Amino acid sequence: MTTRASSTRLPRDERREQLVVLGRELLGTRPYEQVSIGELARAAGVSKGLLYHYFPTKSDFVVAVLEQSHAELAEQMTPDPALPAEQRLDAAIDAVLRYAEEHRQGFLATMRARHGPDETIREVLAAARARRVSSLVELAARRAGAPREEVESPLLQAAAEGWVHLSEHVIGRWLERGDLERDAVLALLRDTLLGALDAGLAARGSPAPVR
Amino acid sequence: MTTRASSTRLPRDERREQLVVLGRELLGTRPYEQVSIGELARAAGVSKGLLYHYFPTKSDFVVAVLEQSHAELAEQMTPDPALPAEQRLDAAIDAVLRYAEEHRQGFLATMRARHGPDETIREVLAAARARRVSSLVELAARRAGAPREEVESPLLQAAAEGWVHLSEHVIGRWLERGDLERDAVLALLRDTLLGALDAGLAARGSPAPVR
Repeated sequence: MTTRASSTRLPRDERREQLVVLGRELLGTRPYEQVSIGELARAAGVSKGLLYHYFPTKSDFVVAVLEQSHAELAEQMTPDPALPAEQRLDAAIDAVLRYAEEHRQGFLATMRARHGPDETIREVLAAARARRVSSLVELAARRAGAPREEVESPLLQAAAEGWVHLSEHVIGRWLERGDLERDAVLALLRDTLLGALDAGLAARGSPAPVR
Repeated sequence: MTTRASSTRLPRDERREQLVVLGRELLGTRPYEQVSIGELARAAGVSKGLLYHYFPTKSDFVVAVLEQSHAELAEQMTPDPALPAEQRLDAAIDAVLRYAEEHRQGFLATMRARHGPDETIREVLAAARARRVSSLVELAARRAGAPREEVESPLLQAAAEGWVHLSEHVIGRWLERGDLERDAVLALLRDTLLGALDAGLAARGSPAPVR
């Protein structure tokens, strides 16, 4: 913990954002189930009352942290348009792995929270997963050289969703066990993603694109 | 519910097995969280006391049902040695899909139970998943034409585990939403499985086998 929300008066939005940034630092290294609002307030150098002013419940605070994390990850994953298409996918997967490394505990806590008791948090996580699936359908459309409307199907969605589950497991295992090489994880995720999208596109009747 | 454990005296093992069979019928059509021991006893035509004699807790009963289901599924998935290798995989996946269709509610309840509160049930399910992963590693070895010890690696395990997650999601979605064709699900599972195993084998340095 390096940053502190000093007691200096800050505009409302800035103070809120600063608290979220502090929350991310703390929740990136400790499972959020174990972090109390009191501890968050102490770490931020503010009163519990002020924290509750911005975030009426711990769930609201966690949701704000998750939303900021998702926005940041989406930004990091946005491919550099100068990169060739094949490298863009590797760059996006690399961004996810870097994000998982940097927010290890947060990433693992998020995996547990998908099945946790907090419904609001589960919904935020499900919405983020749905956005990820949607962007994979976009990727499949680019691979097929066809408009999204033409390639989108329940099967392609199922394939993309299934791969998201695969990737979450593989990344979680990589973080927890430490028995996988980072490069091998990246290659595994890329190859299985392309395979899943091609299999999801196959129902169109056209042959899967050659790699 | 067609069978009834009549009040005829039966040898201990037979009675126990009969109760498990009845439990499977009931738990295949209704989520087990919603089924009480009392209801199971009534459906089986025995007293609650007798049911408790064989299964001290509901969790014990569910575990017995799961173990019998897993054994049956494993048997159904055992490939017919007369089939060519490629068809054996399709036959095994077809057996899983048939099993999921026939025990729809049980299958969906099992998916929820993986993250449920009952630790014993979670352990039984995790052990079944581990056996499934192990058989996929065997399959990868056959594909690579090499002994298991030679191909087994954390990456191959991660790939197989990841695919198990993918497949559970896809089958669950197929059962719940009804917007996927059975044949397309089978092809998606087969293609993604072969892709995942080949990607998991790729770390050996040898090129992935041609399909």
